[in-house]
Amino acid sequence: MVVSLLITNIGQLLTMQGAFPRRGKAMSELGIIRNAAVAIDGDRIVAVGAAADLEKQCGPARCPVIDTHGALVTPGLIDPHTHPVFSTTREDEFEMRLQGKSYMEIAQGGGGIRRSVRDLRSTPVSVLLAKARLRLDRFLEHGVTTIEAKSGYGLSTESELKQLEIIRELDETHPVDMVPTFLGAHEFPDEYRENREGYIHLLIDEMLPAVAERKLAVFSDIFCEEGVFDNAQSRRIQEAALKHGLKLKFHADELASTGGAELAASLKAVSADHLVYISDNGIAALAASGTAAVLLPGTSYSLGSKKYAPARQMIEAGVVVALSTDCNPGSNNSESLAMMMSLASVQMKMTAAESMSAVTVNAAYAVGRDDIGVLAPGKLADLVIWDAADVRELPYHYGVNLVRTVVKRGELAIVCD
Amino acid sequence: MVVSLLITNIGQLLTMQGAFPRRGKAMSELGIIRNAAVAIDGDRIVAVGAAADLEKQCGPARCPVIDTHGALVTPGLIDPHTHPVFSTTREDEFEMRLQGKSYMEIAQGGGGIRRSVRDLRSTPVSVLLAKARLRLDRFLEHGVTTIEAKSGYGLSTESELKQLEIIRELDETHPVDMVPTFLGAHEFPDEYRENREGYIHLLIDEMLPAVAERKLAVFSDIFCEEGVFDNAQSRRIQEAALKHGLKLKFHADELASTGGAELAASLKAVSADHLVYISDNGIAALAASGTAAVLLPGTSYSLGSKKYAPARQMIEAGVVVALSTDCNPGSNNSESLAMMMSLASVQMKMTAAESMSAVTVNAAYAVGRDDIGVLAPGKLADLVIWDAADVRELPYHYGVNLVRTVVKRGELAIVCD
Repeated sequence: MVVSLLITNIGQLLTMQGAFPRRGKAMSELGIIRNAAVAIDGDRIVAVGAAADLEKQCGPARCPVIDTHGALVTPGLIDPHTHPVFSTTREDEFEMRLQGKSYMEIAQGGGGIRRSVRDLRSTPVSVLLAKARLRLDRFLEHGVTTIEAKSGYGLSTESELKQLEIIRELDETHPVDMVPTFLGAHEFPDEYRENREGYIHLLIDEMLPAVAERKLAVFSDIFCEEGVFDNAQSRRIQEAALKHGLKLKFHADELASTGGAELAASLKAVSADHLVYISDNGIAALAASGTAAVLLPGTSYSLGSKKYAPARQMIEAGVVVALSTDCNPGSNNSESLAMMMSLASVQMKMTAAESMSAVTVNAAYAVGRDDIGVLAPGKLADLVIWDAADVRELPYHYGVNLVRTVVKRGELAIVCD
Repeated sequence: MVVSLLITNIGQLLTMQGAFPRRGKAMSELGIIRNAAVAIDGDRIVAVGAAADLEKQCGPARCPVIDTHGALVTPGLIDPHTHPVFSTTREDEFEMRLQGKSYMEIAQGGGGIRRSVRDLRSTPVSVLLAKARLRLDRFLEHGVTTIEAKSGYGLSTESELKQLEIIRELDETHPVDMVPTFLGAHEFPDEYRENREGYIHLLIDEMLPAVAERKLAVFSDIFCEEGVFDNAQSRRIQEAALKHGLKLKFHADELASTGGAELAASLKAVSADHLVYISDNGIAALAASGTAAVLLPGTSYSLGSKKYAPARQMIEAGVVVALSTDCNPGSNNSESLAMMMSLASVQMKMTAAESMSAVTVNAAYAVGRDDIGVLAPGKLADLVIWDAADVRELPYHYGVNLVRTVVKRGELAIVCD
């Protein structure tokens, strides 16, 4: 066995081997090996197993070794819903909301997404790249090795392409891997407020073909919500996206119950996201279609809402539940999936084990990948060594970064000491 | 002017000069200087002011300089309520609580504080020291330069002294400064469950004299709560502490409204802490006595409670409000005051400015110190350079560590790059 790196003396190795994706009780199964090791060659895992066995085959004398001294080791975390390319932060809106203004009031006053659109359009690519790199660094420091990354602050053909090209460049030049999503249907831009049908034509006739032709996106997403894209508009746009070979995601039932989950399921979307106000019908539809539910508890938190997505009900109904930061300048600015695991525990009563499934295997499923989120031979060598001995420490010891070391594609990407 | 270190090109310097402590509207006043610099000599600040002026007096040619490139700079944060000396974590109880067990049920089943007591008694000093050092490192990495540190996991004369001696050794050997508090009245230990009066005698006749004689504590604290120490017992013990020259703190009105705040005020305690269930009378009493209210939103969060201390009502009534992590293995395991500022914003509707007053000047007041929490000539040179430009970013960009550099007593203690 050729091995370029051996990680050994692992106290609790969560391989996440088993069902893909995880539903119901299977979300609590972590494929744990104690006193374990992981052998890597190049960017792939070649073996996982008992430390004693793997050390015999490729011990200290034969290859570089990391001794974790009994630590918890997990797959690199996967964030299936982020908006990482933006210029200025919007902390003033955060404070306004907590003093009583609603998300929709701020949006209608010219704040919110449209403010980030004006901002992105007027910011040079070099500045956007530099700022996004700092965010990716922070994701990586917090154990996140792959993110789904959306456009949606351009809302013109030129600016949407600009944002997707930045995502491509980041994917090629930064250790964090990016799964790109076209989100031209994030909002109606200022210049189309009185001509919404005109913007839908632009999306279908110009933007989607341009994005598809340049292969700049894997997914098409849409903000399906009262006051933004209604169900009929969402269906038209997403059916056009399907024709261009894009897979589907939906922002659904975030602020009100509008049947977004049912629509996503009917179009066989890979994921429906937010789902704070999902109906019983919507839950049944997602369970039946296999559409992943990507839950964003940080967004409820940052909006100062007491209402969180009904995670327990979804898990019990057999929905594939994943977790994400929703990292964006408006409704949630955080790059820490461990923090989201903590909010999932406290606010949605998910166990640490369920949350771990939600940021590894199920998040991989939600971004259409099966080569990450699991530690097994042939999978990408993305993993995290934690300053913790047990997975239950992650949601419990919160607000601080417990990541010690991150290995990305077989390389040491982050080493904290 | 002799200067050993100049920190300059500060975008937003929060000097926190002005009222000490801060009450009401004054909590929003941060003593901001823009385009600022701070000059340090040894462990003290010698000047704060406009960058241009200070650079003329002691520019790059004359002393070492840190250019913050427009960053936010604040005083080192002060945590006025922590339990940092313990051995094992209790993440299993965290998960049990979120699955429906109450704090009191877990305590009555032998978990909770009494579990940490059995644990501390049986753990060697060297192990306790090593584990506490890692916690102090984490506090420092998160911008905390002074903590109040309680005993209370010993509950015998020998083990309480052991814990306070560990705190003294940490204070002498670790950059984070410690303000020691005797908390022998944290709980009734197993061996005194049926003889509570006997434990109170032990506290008054043996422990308090031993602690005072060795000068191991500045404060005496007590868990004044239903099922723990009632008001009459709390008064007897704290009056004895006063006779030994200790200043007073109270765990008050945490789980029920029992008049703990009124008792603390009547004994002129420096602080009353928790206060989730404080009454209107209690609020009026704290405002009148000048007793600081130390609020611990992370504890409500970690207990999965929807109930937080009524911070707005206290601020409007003129109470001196401070914030703390309550860092401990049971009800809240976090070393991040920035995370507590975020919870204070989201859950208690405090503004970022109010929260900053609560973790600097008002926290200094709550630990009986006036040489920290303010950046002014003569004060200790404890400060934080943030990866942020505006104080409002701290609660908004949460769950990640925005600390870039920490200066403790004029020395570079943490440098992240």
